[in-house]
Amino acid sequence: MRNHDSMFLTFDQLADLSRRILRGRGLSPGHAEAVTRTIVAGERDGCASHGAYRLIVCAATLATGKVVPDAEPQVTSRAPALAQVDAGGGYAQLAFERGLPMLVEKARAAGIAALAINNCVHFAALWPEIEAVVAEGLVALACTPSHAWVAPAGGTRPLFGTNPIAFGWPRPGPYPFVFDFATSAVARGEIELHRRAGKPIPIGWGVDAEGRPTTDPAAALGGAMLTFGGHKGSALSAMIELIAGPLIGDMTSAESLAADGGAGSSPIGGELIVAIDPRGFLGDAAGAHLQRAETLFAGITGQGARLPSQRRFEARAASLARGGVMLARGLYKDLLALFD
Amino acid sequence: MRNHDSMFLTFDQLADLSRRILRGRGLSPGHAEAVTRTIVAGERDGCASHGAYRLIVCAATLATGKVVPDAEPQVTSRAPALAQVDAGGGYAQLAFERGLPMLVEKARAAGIAALAINNCVHFAALWPEIEAVVAEGLVALACTPSHAWVAPAGGTRPLFGTNPIAFGWPRPGPYPFVFDFATSAVARGEIELHRRAGKPIPIGWGVDAEGRPTTDPAAALGGAMLTFGGHKGSALSAMIELIAGPLIGDMTSAESLAADGGAGSSPIGGELIVAIDPRGFLGDAAGAHLQRAETLFAGITGQGARLPSQRRFEARAASLARGGVMLARGLYKDLLALFD
Repeated sequence: MRNHDSMFLTFDQLADLSRRILRGRGLSPGHAEAVTRTIVAGERDGCASHGAYRLIVCAATLATGKVVPDAEPQVTSRAPALAQVDAGGGYAQLAFERGLPMLVEKARAAGIAALAINNCVHFAALWPEIEAVVAEGLVALACTPSHAWVAPAGGTRPLFGTNPIAFGWPRPGPYPFVFDFATSAVARGEIELHRRAGKPIPIGWGVDAEGRPTTDPAAALGGAMLTFGGHKGSALSAMIELIAGPLIGDMTSAESLAADGGAGSSPIGGELIVAIDPRGFLGDAAGAHLQRAETLFAGITGQGARLPSQRRFEARAASLARGGVMLARGLYKDLLALFD
Repeated sequence: MRNHDSMFLTFDQLADLSRRILRGRGLSPGHAEAVTRTIVAGERDGCASHGAYRLIVCAATLATGKVVPDAEPQVTSRAPALAQVDAGGGYAQLAFERGLPMLVEKARAAGIAALAINNCVHFAALWPEIEAVVAEGLVALACTPSHAWVAPAGGTRPLFGTNPIAFGWPRPGPYPFVFDFATSAVARGEIELHRRAGKPIPIGWGVDAEGRPTTDPAAALGGAMLTFGGHKGSALSAMIELIAGPLIGDMTSAESLAADGGAGSSPIGGELIVAIDPRGFLGDAAGAHLQRAETLFAGITGQGARLPSQRRFEARAASLARGGVMLARGLYKDLLALFD
């Protein structure tokens, strides 16, 4: 990427650019900071779709008026091991940051705890939140519905969201064990990219409006996406609808899409984050047992398999060594155009 | 099945047969009762591999001396929201029954709670335990490692177990929303059945000892099974190893297989069960929000798709209507032979 098509920005330069765009679009200082942190983290980790590009998505969503740009998240304790943040219709990032201390405190006190974020707008991956919980020495699980684009196994019509699930486990050294994946066969953006490129999609990614398997990306976008892993992935997706929807008093993916009303905003609704303290079951033996997890990881990498997030962590290491990110010039121009 | 190849047994007759076999093989009365309840439930629900047939597996495992037949499970509170049962080397069922009241009590008090079962021998499905938690009006999630038979995605050698994950959600009426599936592409028994029948297996179920995709069931059994859903299923399987292994101070699937030492016993180790009280986040609004979950279920069945466990619940309804189970005469003879 070190060529004329891309340019180097320090992390501070990228953060400053993001902050100015978001403030210019009306986000309050607290939201602009929180969103900027995830934008910079995404770009640093080589996640093209969750990095600087997301500023364009963010600007479009803000233009729909579906985001409360200066919402003040309200944190409430619902039970000894349950924390809740009402995001007030704002982006999820600030709500998460405000709720995190109570989640951590409750997980340490009770052994396991859950944080519900309600009434928020999503547009980031879940791994930044997972990594923030894991940085406290806790095991973390998070999930959220999205918009109803995915058919249940054996069905033909959109009902589930792409419903990501993410998990993290603390490790010695800079990088935890983390996965974060959509329960749809692929990301919706992947099908969109095939459509733009005029390329067929593999069977298994989606069905057309009549529920027939299709290799036509436009037909799949107009029909329904499919889950990964057949009926098992579909069951997981239903679980995510339930535990990050009705269980926390928030919307299912179908309700989120209906609430959007065709505005094309990012999904709104809730998110569930569960944290478990390894010291709860293990006490002072936690260190020794976490070491046995290292043996498991060595059993994965020792046979040439990759750990989840390994590519992302390699990109992060390269960005950190270089002190910033390489941004495509075309994207940089598009970002500057957001000031017009 | 109402023909000369099968015979009718009332639930009580099957329970009595199971109890006598298990007592005859040395299980204490408490263990024989607890195991019998899952055997009868499995047969009632048409789960051939987790019904009466399991008595044969159980007898073989007891013969290895790897099960403590009269273990007295010890229940301990580890934290306000964490309960733990030391199964003392006995079967998991009695340990679960002893730990359930504390799990329920903690989940109601704290909003979310976890129960670890340690040092137990597994041989049943997870859904009976899920249904017992859900019957208390709680949402439940359970998982357990097994024996190292499954390669991680991109790998070639066994490391993970078939690692089932199960989930339950309370519903009005007799049947909750429940799923329970192995994170391996198929059950190990399925590959074994293909081997016995001399039938090839589809690509994707396993690899041979050199890590090459194979359609030969014997080669897959001697090599490694694969997870469902590629790298996503593999990530989930790793999560199960971690949270129902080191997190609760118990064995990974590789450690369980090593501890077996070729005896061919059922997997030993731990199990994690998480329970969440819908009233924790929702209070008195729980009823209304659970109703929104019913809308989701109607969205699944309304397009001709099936809910997980639907076939099992249909079998249960038929068994309940008939007042018992239809047992294959060959299996009945094999069970009687256990008295020899």
